[in-house]
Amino acid sequence: MQTKQRGSQVKISDKFWRRYMDIVRDEVIPYQWEALNDRIEGAEPSHAVENFRIAAGDTEGEYHGFVFQDSDIAKWIEAVAYSLVSDPNPELEKTVDDLIALIGRAQQKDGYLNTYFTVKEPDARWTNLRDQHELYSGGHMIEAAVAYFEATGKRELLDIMVRFAEYVDSVFGGGEGKIKGYDGHQEIELALVKLAETTGEDKYLKLSKFFIDERGRHPHFFDQEAESRGDTKPFWYYGHEYSQSHLPVREQKEAVGHSVRAVYMYSAMADLAVKTGDESLAEACKTLWENVTNRQMYITAGIGSSAFGESFSFDYDLPNDTSYTETCASIGLVFWAKRMLNLDKNAKYADVMERALYNGTISGMDLDGKKFFYVNPLEVWPKACTRHDHGHVKSVRQKWFNCACCPPNLARLVASIGKYIYTRSENELFINLYMGNAAEFEFGDEKVKITQETNYPWDQNVKMIISTTNLVEFTLGLRMPGWCRKAQLTVNGEHIDVEDVLKDGYIYLKRQWKDGDTVELALSMPVERIKAHPQVRENAGKVALQRGPIVYCIEEVDNGPNLPNIFLPKSSDTEMFFDSSLLGGVTIIKAQANRTDGSNWGQQLYTFDEQKFESTTITAIPYFAWCNREPGEMLVWINETL
Amino acid sequence: MQTKQRGSQVKISDKFWRRYMDIVRDEVIPYQWEALNDRIEGAEPSHAVENFRIAAGDTEGEYHGFVFQDSDIAKWIEAVAYSLVSDPNPELEKTVDDLIALIGRAQQKDGYLNTYFTVKEPDARWTNLRDQHELYSGGHMIEAAVAYFEATGKRELLDIMVRFAEYVDSVFGGGEGKIKGYDGHQEIELALVKLAETTGEDKYLKLSKFFIDERGRHPHFFDQEAESRGDTKPFWYYGHEYSQSHLPVREQKEAVGHSVRAVYMYSAMADLAVKTGDESLAEACKTLWENVTNRQMYITAGIGSSAFGESFSFDYDLPNDTSYTETCASIGLVFWAKRMLNLDKNAKYADVMERALYNGTISGMDLDGKKFFYVNPLEVWPKACTRHDHGHVKSVRQKWFNCACCPPNLARLVASIGKYIYTRSENELFINLYMGNAAEFEFGDEKVKITQETNYPWDQNVKMIISTTNLVEFTLGLRMPGWCRKAQLTVNGEHIDVEDVLKDGYIYLKRQWKDGDTVELALSMPVERIKAHPQVRENAGKVALQRGPIVYCIEEVDNGPNLPNIFLPKSSDTEMFFDSSLLGGVTIIKAQANRTDGSNWGQQLYTFDEQKFESTTITAIPYFAWCNREPGEMLVWINETL
Repeated sequence: MQTKQRGSQVKISDKFWRRYMDIVRDEVIPYQWEALNDRIEGAEPSHAVENFRIAAGDTEGEYHGFVFQDSDIAKWIEAVAYSLVSDPNPELEKTVDDLIALIGRAQQKDGYLNTYFTVKEPDARWTNLRDQHELYSGGHMIEAAVAYFEATGKRELLDIMVRFAEYVDSVFGGGEGKIKGYDGHQEIELALVKLAETTGEDKYLKLSKFFIDERGRHPHFFDQEAESRGDTKPFWYYGHEYSQSHLPVREQKEAVGHSVRAVYMYSAMADLAVKTGDESLAEACKTLWENVTNRQMYITAGIGSSAFGESFSFDYDLPNDTSYTETCASIGLVFWAKRMLNLDKNAKYADVMERALYNGTISGMDLDGKKFFYVNPLEVWPKACTRHDHGHVKSVRQKWFNCACCPPNLARLVASIGKYIYTRSENELFINLYMGNAAEFEFGDEKVKITQETNYPWDQNVKMIISTTNLVEFTLGLRMPGWCRKAQLTVNGEHIDVEDVLKDGYIYLKRQWKDGDTVELALSMPVERIKAHPQVRENAGKVALQRGPIVYCIEEVDNGPNLPNIFLPKSSDTEMFFDSSLLGGVTIIKAQANRTDGSNWGQQLYTFDEQKFESTTITAIPYFAWCNREPGEMLVWINETL
Repeated sequence: MQTKQRGSQVKISDKFWRRYMDIVRDEVIPYQWEALNDRIEGAEPSHAVENFRIAAGDTEGEYHGFVFQDSDIAKWIEAVAYSLVSDPNPELEKTVDDLIALIGRAQQKDGYLNTYFTVKEPDARWTNLRDQHELYSGGHMIEAAVAYFEATGKRELLDIMVRFAEYVDSVFGGGEGKIKGYDGHQEIELALVKLAETTGEDKYLKLSKFFIDERGRHPHFFDQEAESRGDTKPFWYYGHEYSQSHLPVREQKEAVGHSVRAVYMYSAMADLAVKTGDESLAEACKTLWENVTNRQMYITAGIGSSAFGESFSFDYDLPNDTSYTETCASIGLVFWAKRMLNLDKNAKYADVMERALYNGTISGMDLDGKKFFYVNPLEVWPKACTRHDHGHVKSVRQKWFNCACCPPNLARLVASIGKYIYTRSENELFINLYMGNAAEFEFGDEKVKITQETNYPWDQNVKMIISTTNLVEFTLGLRMPGWCRKAQLTVNGEHIDVEDVLKDGYIYLKRQWKDGDTVELALSMPVERIKAHPQVRENAGKVALQRGPIVYCIEEVDNGPNLPNIFLPKSSDTEMFFDSSLLGGVTIIKAQANRTDGSNWGQQLYTFDEQKFESTTITAIPYFAWCNREPGEMLVWINETL
């Protein structure tokens, strides 16, 4: 089952996502361009564009920024490309064209492209793959090139990156004199798959597979490389787990190390498994998927519970207040999920994808697109953020980051949201996400348009209308969300029993579709009290409120301080209201709860006296929208009492 | 109210404490002597004795160890001194005498004594008070000298340290050309008070007061000192809070920074407030006491909730699993509490002292005196100790530490336990701790002996018998423990209503005492469910079991894994049993509880299905005795349900 559709074939009309796309177009993209050009007052200069100017010889100066500063430029171009598809903007396109020309001038004669090494360490190319992100930055620029070509048909950046890829192919590989290595930060692997798709060149697929196959072999490439450099310092992390190179990828059963690296690699593995039919790779992907999503994932689809190394820790270790749960990691989980759907017709991947999209990814941005979280905790006590071991947790979103990976990553995700809705195989069309959009597909010679109408995620009803000139036979696979206990389905008003046609989370509707056919799905959406696996000791005795795909939280601004003192009785009814004036329009949840009454406490810290409680009404809001009003405490997992 | 009695006047017969004293005598002291002499196979050499040999010119070599390595020698001598009082040992005394002779040879002509600077940086004396512990190490040696003099009457070490103190007095102070500074690690301050007491020399009291008064003044001594050194590196901690020198001590309202430094300083402040009648210093002590004990202290009397800087964090921030709660800090809290009792006739200080003695101090040592905890957490999931932010938490006691401050500190505390039982003023004798002992006091010309008979802390009955030749009038103040709801009191069989004679936690019995007078106190000791202040969010919805002064915990070895999944119903009765064969003889607690039934869980991490529970009987043991059987999880604060 392989994705064929392009973003260009999907037009988003969805109220929820269109608002984010507008923000990305109107706020994030312009702001980031200013940031990349060091024109934001009070912010540390990015120097990313200036680095290219220096590398191009347009100006003189020193390199500044991280070694992977180029990737900020790449992610910005990629986001712009997706945005141009839905919202043409000749002026912006001209800016990108000029930037691409600059990139072209910064490329070396042999095809090499990396401003850090070109400007700062021209003799040190490929001497420290472990730490220096050379192929990582190149990978992001390939993704940008592919996206910009698909959006505009313009080949210039694609040609630049083809030259780069050709050069990389001449340097890395199994042949005599080539480097048998790989990058410390996976990214080129999935980028090369995209390049192969777009150019039709299998060579890039093979190069991607080389990097994946080589990873984790012994003797270890990073050790050999360090020895060649005369670098005797022990690696700062526990080991090569950091970059998932501790074992050959097919032998990896548990997600370890830096979580973004991990999911980027798993994405490439899934791609390669689909493209090459490699069963062992497919198996490894499925094993790792189960480990991540059933053992190491927060309810928000945040992943990476440890700040040290921005990494996975171990099964069921999911602290709520010190989690790392980087925005980029949840974004990477979306990338991976999308690819797993090509590998395996199972809606569980789409469940996780949806969980990430409506929770742990967009929580990384405020509702105005002006401030960002790098770390997305599930419990925040602002005062505790002064603790050294909470140093990574911010209680309010920040304007921009020194290491600015998350905002542009989020921008490219949101701008390309249309790419995640559908999965195609020859005779099947799977609908993974419900959102207002119109998309076109070809079945044989027939063009079919599908229009979704819904007020998802706030409303349970989704209407899907088929437009086609002629009758066309194909199977429509509607995702039955994992969070949904009961769905009502009609086709042209005729009831269909979902259970009868449900398989692996998809409702299969195989028929000859005609123009105007209308599928109506009602996904029962009560407030659910979610419990975590008993091994997740952080959440013992607690519940999280979820409605549809939306995970809820309680905030101090609605509920007063000291949120852990709130206890939600099992018997307490929950009510929900859509509040169009709140947080851009969200459904809120209200419930009767009890709160420890501190008024009878004197100065003493401990007592044998009975605790008193007072009744209170709690208000829960969608997690993604937290911290958009008065800053304060936030809590996802709420104590429950009998 | 001033302590006059010496340890030599109290003979301990108490079963509970005598066992620890025997362990210190038979295990800890001999083992530490081997360790200090680098004779422990497999352990990193301490080099502490060798450093003295090199400094003395007895041998040649390099200095090794921490800058404060000398203090390990000092604490060992101090512990031996206390031990010799109760258990004379001529051979051990000879060893100490030889060691003292060596110390004398290592002392410089001008009185200076510090092997680090003598051997390694002879020209750098007093150039980095902030970091180098020169006066700290000297302070410990003064304490050792005083203790050894009191135990044996031998003056040699006392004379050495008097020479040192004279030299320090010539270097530091307000006079022209003197250093207006103080040590980064407080200790000399309280040591100088002891030296003043023992020698009768007020000069040392004044010097101690100089260090206390000077601390925290601006411009800041450590900044000036750093500037003189040409040291431009920013201090690694948040600021001078680390060493409680951010403000003049009288302006400090909250405990901050390194917790051991803090309580050593507060101890000296309390001493000076008593000795000099300094009201502002007394007030500062009381304010800081309330802050520490009502806002920043664990139920075990552990203090210092942050690993970074081994420090206090802020009010009500008491995480159970990442606490630092260093053994030495709880020991320091005992030192401080004892001194507060001299300042203020209030049993609340003794309550905390007792809490520390029966919980957070002795938890630092196993029941055989062979392994030690530096960090005493209240919740341990061994697997989580692999997390980087739990790196300081060990799930099992360690044989010895590279920085070996805690074991000898515990040794000197246990060996001198008799010093903590009573507080004297001219006509009053306060009994702060109940334990089997016989102690002698003088009231006017009369000698009075008090014998306590009890099986405390396991049994509620304490019998106190007066022995005197003549009638003697004084007030006996019996502590009514804060944990006790109801006490029964008789004098010579005659009932006395406790409430009538209770003031600030003491039961006042003023009378003419005659030989054979017998006071019997029964302190009601049911199992109590203790709740923490609602601001302690870690403990919301949880209770700790306590009986008498003993805080309980549940361990995996008795209760299986995943302890946070245990819920103790409010209605559940608790039963207790004394088990003489368990953990050296302890009272255990049993209660019916519920445990999350994980058997209906499949692979999924989150579910909307109802949680099931199974009934279980939990067994709780005294916290101090945890980790003396099979290693595993441990938990103090247990979830409670309706």
